Amino acid sequence: MLINIVSTANKTFKHIKALGRKNYREKHKEFVIEGVRLLKEALQSHAPIKAVLVSESFLKNDQNRAFLDKLLMDVNNRPSHSPPPTPHSIYTCNDRMFKEMTHTETPQGILAVAAVQSHSLKDITEDHRPFFVYCDAVQDPGNMGTIIRTADAAGADAVIVSGGCADIYNPKTVRSTMGSLFHLPVIKVEDSRAALSDLKERGLKVIAGHLCATAKNHFEVDMKRGLVLVIGNEANGVSKPIVELSDYIVKIPILGRAESLNAGIASGILMYEIVRQRMK
Amino acid sequence: MLINIVSTANKTFKHIKALGRKNYREKHKEFVIEGVRLLKEALQSHAPIKAVLVSESFLKNDQNRAFLDKLLMDVNNRPSHSPPPTPHSIYTCNDRMFKEMTHTETPQGILAVAAVQSHSLKDITEDHRPFFVYCDAVQDPGNMGTIIRTADAAGADAVIVSGGCADIYNPKTVRSTMGSLFHLPVIKVEDSRAALSDLKERGLKVIAGHLCATAKNHFEVDMKRGLVLVIGNEANGVSKPIVELSDYIVKIPILGRAESLNAGIASGILMYEIVRQRMK
Repeated sequence: MLINIVSTANKTFKHIKALGRKNYREKHKEFVIEGVRLLKEALQSHAPIKAVLVSESFLKNDQNRAFLDKLLMDVNNRPSHSPPPTPHSIYTCNDRMFKEMTHTETPQGILAVAAVQSHSLKDITEDHRPFFVYCDAVQDPGNMGTIIRTADAAGADAVIVSGGCADIYNPKTVRSTMGSLFHLPVIKVEDSRAALSDLKERGLKVIAGHLCATAKNHFEVDMKRGLVLVIGNEANGVSKPIVELSDYIVKIPILGRAESLNAGIASGILMYEIVRQRMK
Repeated sequence: MLINIVSTANKTFKHIKALGRKNYREKHKEFVIEGVRLLKEALQSHAPIKAVLVSESFLKNDQNRAFLDKLLMDVNNRPSHSPPPTPHSIYTCNDRMFKEMTHTETPQGILAVAAVQSHSLKDITEDHRPFFVYCDAVQDPGNMGTIIRTADAAGADAVIVSGGCADIYNPKTVRSTMGSLFHLPVIKVEDSRAALSDLKERGLKVIAGHLCATAKNHFEVDMKRGLVLVIGNEANGVSKPIVELSDYIVKIPILGRAESLNAGIASGILMYEIVRQRMK
């Protein structure tokens, strides 16, 4: 059954809208995903979806309606004590109210509330040569999302995110991951030094991508071993304590007159050098 | 001397505002660059700057004022028949009017009007193994800018842009190039097949980055020779006529569950594989 939200005083309406704020997301351990594609990715990955909301216009399209009918059937047939991912409730509201809850300029008319799945470094089962991506104060939500998407494509075991990074549940980050947020564990750590020291003790090498005098070209370092690739802040690179703790500092050579590379691009180049070395 | 613009009926105000539209830019062969950094890059690269405009707030900052005084001195000392890049006029206006002319959310308070510099494929002096980047209907202005920036960093000789690409003088594209638009020739071509056939006749190999059954992994193709790297459209990849004309089709292997890579990231990985092979 579709539950119609008619007033902006509605509790669910207010809740979804408030999930646009980082501190509210952190308090409730929930976030919003937008669009059919992301919702499908989330359902396929058994991500815990709490609620789905669609706009009036969304329901007017036959293909959308078919997708929703299938979802409603799943909800109705859900055993009373079923675990996620099947959403508990599906809501609808008018387009104007829907627009108030989204963060996209041309919303598709469907969004869902997902519960945060907490992962810890300890949960990660490592194969014989793990590959972690560590984000050290990456600030731009779009870059953060693209890094998660690229790490997924490159077959990374997990993405580790320092406290100073953009929130991974920011609507823009979620959108930029293109679903990869549900494909591999993304682990938040508060104490970067402790986390990296722990990984070093497990035998992993820490490789920081950072422009400095002693850095080697990225393709001149052996990346076939188990490793943590550190991606630094857009403006300042990898922070000093983490540079000091790193086993190797690598740089991407700049041949032309550009001052630097975009942080997302740089991380893609480094991750795929790992892929190349391991596939060769 | 600073010329104060006080009315939105002012000719210069209307001209700069209209440069936000693609057809107006094409008619006048001018475009807008925003921010101190881009303007410095343009001046250093001897790009033809027609006019500079600053907001009231911009002038209140000492560092900004020093930058502008230096620029004003250059303008005053310019011989009457001097060639660009020295701007002819420097304007100022109030913040509200300035905001109307910019395309950034938090404008720095300085913009300039630059003349388009037309390049032709024939003008490009090739070294013994040239490296061109060819954009085939790249649609996102941000991706377009990032590709130009990355091509600059990777030491490409030129970027060639097909008719179906995002306009390279779109404010977002200009911004994403981070100045690289002024560092290497960016050449617009209308007839893609003719341009690529011409380059093939010059002895260059055409390598298309494209997901298809027969594609080789990108690191398995020799990229040390003179070549044109073709970057395709975000959704559809490289168009069929260009795939047919290509000497090699390469793909970036996807190891995880991501469906694809961001177009900017993919082009960065391909360009830096060329760099790696040539530096080795």
